[in-house]
Amino acid sequence: MVVKGTLIHTPVLGEVETIKHALVTIDDSGQISSIRSPGTASYDEEIIAASSAGQLFELGANQYLLPGLVDLHIHAPQWPQVGTALHLPLYDWLQQCTFPLEAKYDDLGFARQNYESLVDNLLANGTTTATCYGTIHLEATKLLAEICLDRGQRAVIGKIAMDNRQECPDFYRDKSTTSGLDGTRALIEHIRNLPGNEDGRVLPAVTPRFIPGCTDEMLEGLGSIADEYNCHVQTHCSESDWEHDYVIERHGVNDTQSLDRFQLLTDKTVLAHSNLISDEDMSTIKTRASGIAHCPLSNVYFSNAVFPARRALDRGLKVGLGTDISGGPSPSILHNCQASVNSSRMLEEGVDPTVRRGERGTPNSRIDYLEAFWMATVGGAETLGLKVGRFEEGYSFDAMVIDRNVADTNLQGLDDFQSGEDALQKIIYNAERRNIANVWVQGRMVKGS
Amino acid sequence: MVVKGTLIHTPVLGEVETIKHALVTIDDSGQISSIRSPGTASYDEEIIAASSAGQLFELGANQYLLPGLVDLHIHAPQWPQVGTALHLPLYDWLQQCTFPLEAKYDDLGFARQNYESLVDNLLANGTTTATCYGTIHLEATKLLAEICLDRGQRAVIGKIAMDNRQECPDFYRDKSTTSGLDGTRALIEHIRNLPGNEDGRVLPAVTPRFIPGCTDEMLEGLGSIADEYNCHVQTHCSESDWEHDYVIERHGVNDTQSLDRFQLLTDKTVLAHSNLISDEDMSTIKTRASGIAHCPLSNVYFSNAVFPARRALDRGLKVGLGTDISGGPSPSILHNCQASVNSSRMLEEGVDPTVRRGERGTPNSRIDYLEAFWMATVGGAETLGLKVGRFEEGYSFDAMVIDRNVADTNLQGLDDFQSGEDALQKIIYNAERRNIANVWVQGRMVKGS
Repeated sequence: MVVKGTLIHTPVLGEVETIKHALVTIDDSGQISSIRSPGTASYDEEIIAASSAGQLFELGANQYLLPGLVDLHIHAPQWPQVGTALHLPLYDWLQQCTFPLEAKYDDLGFARQNYESLVDNLLANGTTTATCYGTIHLEATKLLAEICLDRGQRAVIGKIAMDNRQECPDFYRDKSTTSGLDGTRALIEHIRNLPGNEDGRVLPAVTPRFIPGCTDEMLEGLGSIADEYNCHVQTHCSESDWEHDYVIERHGVNDTQSLDRFQLLTDKTVLAHSNLISDEDMSTIKTRASGIAHCPLSNVYFSNAVFPARRALDRGLKVGLGTDISGGPSPSILHNCQASVNSSRMLEEGVDPTVRRGERGTPNSRIDYLEAFWMATVGGAETLGLKVGRFEEGYSFDAMVIDRNVADTNLQGLDDFQSGEDALQKIIYNAERRNIANVWVQGRMVKGS
Repeated sequence: MVVKGTLIHTPVLGEVETIKHALVTIDDSGQISSIRSPGTASYDEEIIAASSAGQLFELGANQYLLPGLVDLHIHAPQWPQVGTALHLPLYDWLQQCTFPLEAKYDDLGFARQNYESLVDNLLANGTTTATCYGTIHLEATKLLAEICLDRGQRAVIGKIAMDNRQECPDFYRDKSTTSGLDGTRALIEHIRNLPGNEDGRVLPAVTPRFIPGCTDEMLEGLGSIADEYNCHVQTHCSESDWEHDYVIERHGVNDTQSLDRFQLLTDKTVLAHSNLISDEDMSTIKTRASGIAHCPLSNVYFSNAVFPARRALDRGLKVGLGTDISGGPSPSILHNCQASVNSSRMLEEGVDPTVRRGERGTPNSRIDYLEAFWMATVGGAETLGLKVGRFEEGYSFDAMVIDRNVADTNLQGLDDFQSGEDALQKIIYNAERRNIANVWVQGRMVKGS
């Protein structure tokens, strides 16, 4: 397949590259085999050949080819309650809503219905890579992996591990440490051996919910499994004051250092939130080549401070974005692009009007739409170690078409803007789900026609 | 006309009222003449009568009747740059983008094209009342009023006044104080005498851009005009550190007190932003019965702190929401509902993770979706002194239908939620423009069929 159109991406942090009338050639395995600009060798020939073979996909006016979005943090079972219950305090939110909801995934019919809906909705929002926590249930989490594979959703998926009787309710907890560890192994084996998953479209992850939810024995066992299988790891890290202080109390160190002791910080680890990490934590995370899932919308509701994205990026950490469904109210990574810009500016300016000018904020904290989109694509991909998130030879063709030719849209007036910068900024602020006309994962079209 | 369906509104701050299968009867003038619940007197007869007269508009499953949204702060000429240029510092944003753009409205063809587009887009986003600054140009601002009237947009509109040579560029400034005042009068007269505007669908406003943009002579003249015509007043108030400090430097007092001296604080005044107002300012604003246009998205970009909405509401001030197109990136008041919740929580929690727990935020600052929607409807209406924003006998029928039966929508799963609270929260977080199926202003359908 050859896709022809105006291409916009952010391969380098803080920069945008635009190629008008680009020609992206995708091989049978879904990898990008070449990217040509008008005027380069065999540009015209390639168009003619693809066209006569019926393999040319041509974007129209007011359409833009962008990389697909990478969501680094999704609680898959919480999809049915997205956009609700956010007025509740954390304790009520967990005990009254979230744990009872997750417990229902013991029912595979319930799981199928909601996981299919989730995956369809993620793809429709341009999320080509979904990093998901499942529930404690092995079978339902296997099903989630199968649905992702079937629907063409690139995904990293883990069975959640939570065995600590002190912090997890009786009705929703791994039966024992052993069963949690066994289930984790079983899921890894299942995903790696799924028919059709030879190219690793769906990948398994070791998934301690968070330190408070796990016994030391569980954490230790999960660290060993991550090492043994060399698979991804995902967990929460220093998300809120309560959680952060709990870990200091229990282990005498911050989450980062504790996770490191349990061998849970690897170059395949995704640390969700990480709002309260120290400079030392940042150094450790960088040394281990782990990455951070910045969840700016969810942080408004369940963290107690803003994640200092600018500082982390300046220090060279890998940072991507997460929706944190349903701690965050939106399934859209574009919404989280906006929110990451907003929260960084609020960190820089400060928020309290009664504090004097000059004492109110944290200077040099802001990011703008370019860094936000980089996190949403390249940063997420680098965190997971996947060759997606940009258009480059040898990378997978995970992409979307943004279309402003749809009726009833707020994505207006792009005609008036000459640059890819303007178009990208406007897309981040004003594109809605309907403006995502086509989505491909590994060259397979999963939205549009 | 009789509209039948599930009605959700927030007539009382912090509370939601839901009436399933409500029957709203609207008279020929577009006023609500009755609201009936199932089982009340003549409920069934009313349905039969309306139905046989072909005057029954019946909502389907998964549709909700909500009040139309009130936008208290729009820079109408800035519509073409919405969603762009927000990475620029204020000075560059004004000098390179905004003033040159506003200056173009000297051209009535340009004005017509963009103002028609703006009004169509506001209505499509459910904004039934639009409070607009025009440009310095009388003719273009007259045109904006005519377009609003023609399209059925309820509006409050002012010719912007800015005559201060120290702060306004040569290419975009009232030619003289006198011409600015004359233009203001002429616009008021024009709007009040527009054929078809007998019911005051479009109202004029005295509109000093902000104190720095105006000479004292201009402010004094505008205060007199506001008094003489008993019309609305709109201006910016203590928006940012620069502007706030400028006024203290020039007038020795805060914006609020300065505006009060010029007779510009009336019960028809809309003060945009007001982030940095003091307790004394709040008292003055309350005494004068003026209202505040809280613009939470724009504040992220061009203010330096969060407007303390909770404090203002607790003190009984009138507060509504504004998009502040194009200082804010979105034409949607629903987006600003979300943003008002988010910024209030960030004010309460604080933002800087290096500050110790307990010292980080401003307790009791949060609002939730209920207060946000109240501001978006009732608060805005009360600020303007209009009988809209809720469903009540004698109020104008300004309303919208939220529909989750559209394809490709994030507004999912409302079926699972029993309460109007859940539905409203989900609508605020997940409804997109396409979910607004129908919009009415004063009983006239302006979107949908």
